[in-house]
Amino acid sequence: MAPIDLREHIRNVPDFPKPGIMFRDITPLLKSPAVFKHTIDRFADAFQATRPTAILAAESRGFIFGAPLAVALGASFIPIRKPGKLPFQTRKFEYDLEYGSDALEMHIDAIGQGSRVLLIDDLLATGGTIEACAKLAEASGADVVGLGFLIELSFLKGRDRLQKYDIVSLIDYKDES
Amino acid sequence: MAPIDLREHIRNVPDFPKPGIMFRDITPLLKSPAVFKHTIDRFADAFQATRPTAILAAESRGFIFGAPLAVALGASFIPIRKPGKLPFQTRKFEYDLEYGSDALEMHIDAIGQGSRVLLIDDLLATGGTIEACAKLAEASGADVVGLGFLIELSFLKGRDRLQKYDIVSLIDYKDES
Repeated sequence: MAPIDLREHIRNVPDFPKPGIMFRDITPLLKSPAVFKHTIDRFADAFQATRPTAILAAESRGFIFGAPLAVALGASFIPIRKPGKLPFQTRKFEYDLEYGSDALEMHIDAIGQGSRVLLIDDLLATGGTIEACAKLAEASGADVVGLGFLIELSFLKGRDRLQKYDIVSLIDYKDES
Repeated sequence: MAPIDLREHIRNVPDFPKPGIMFRDITPLLKSPAVFKHTIDRFADAFQATRPTAILAAESRGFIFGAPLAVALGASFIPIRKPGKLPFQTRKFEYDLEYGSDALEMHIDAIGQGSRVLLIDDLLATGGTIEACAKLAEASGADVVGLGFLIELSFLKGRDRLQKYDIVSLIDYKDES
């Protein structure tokens, strides 16, 4: 069987969500059972040695990769959500966006000292969301052992603000084409 | 090892999201690697014989169970999302809520005639959301081979509107206590 090239399973959708943006649509990858499983296996292989005890992922697309990876690695799955969605006591982190700000929450009993946390998301763009997740984890006393992304848009230089972390991205786009 | 009782891993949070509602918090279940894996195994065992070709799940909590189950069963994972989130051409379904209405979308090329669709969600309450998802699937020409829920609130009688479907729920609450 030919090796799987994940990039071939990403659909480019021009001008979404606004003119000039090339959106990288992951749904063809998710539609192929072999390719989706291969993606989870790649993450598992990349991070098994870091012995994560918990996989953290932000809604919604992060859940699609974080939950199967938690099952594959035998780690906790910890959802990070928009404010007001989680029912128990939460820790909140507010962060700046290009225009305005946003916030994310995690349950206060989700992780703590001794937790080895792996953060998973579909996309590394400017890095603001994942940095907020990492700070949420660290504010709980946990160690962040890695950040994993299906897609990295390296021309947006998200890694610059994430230099202290070990980062694995499975597909890299160097420009908008 | 003692058998796993999934209900013991659900946290009851009174008066969330509003007074009088007992919220069933699934995050303790997700936090336990063995219990989360057991949940996915239970769904896989329940539905393997239906030979689904695609697992459909609505954001966000549906993704947490639907994505690992798709990997486990070797089926497509098809995300159903709030309007405006999916980048390609979509099919939309509007449905009524207690107050007002809501809508869900799926990509038009996600499934079609010959698709055998299994719908997964964390919760069966009044059944409005899952019925909308089933109608989206059927409008695409697919067969709905089953509906799976972690939790059913049977006192809300969601099954009444879903009588034509095969339903599996792993935990049943018969009242708000």
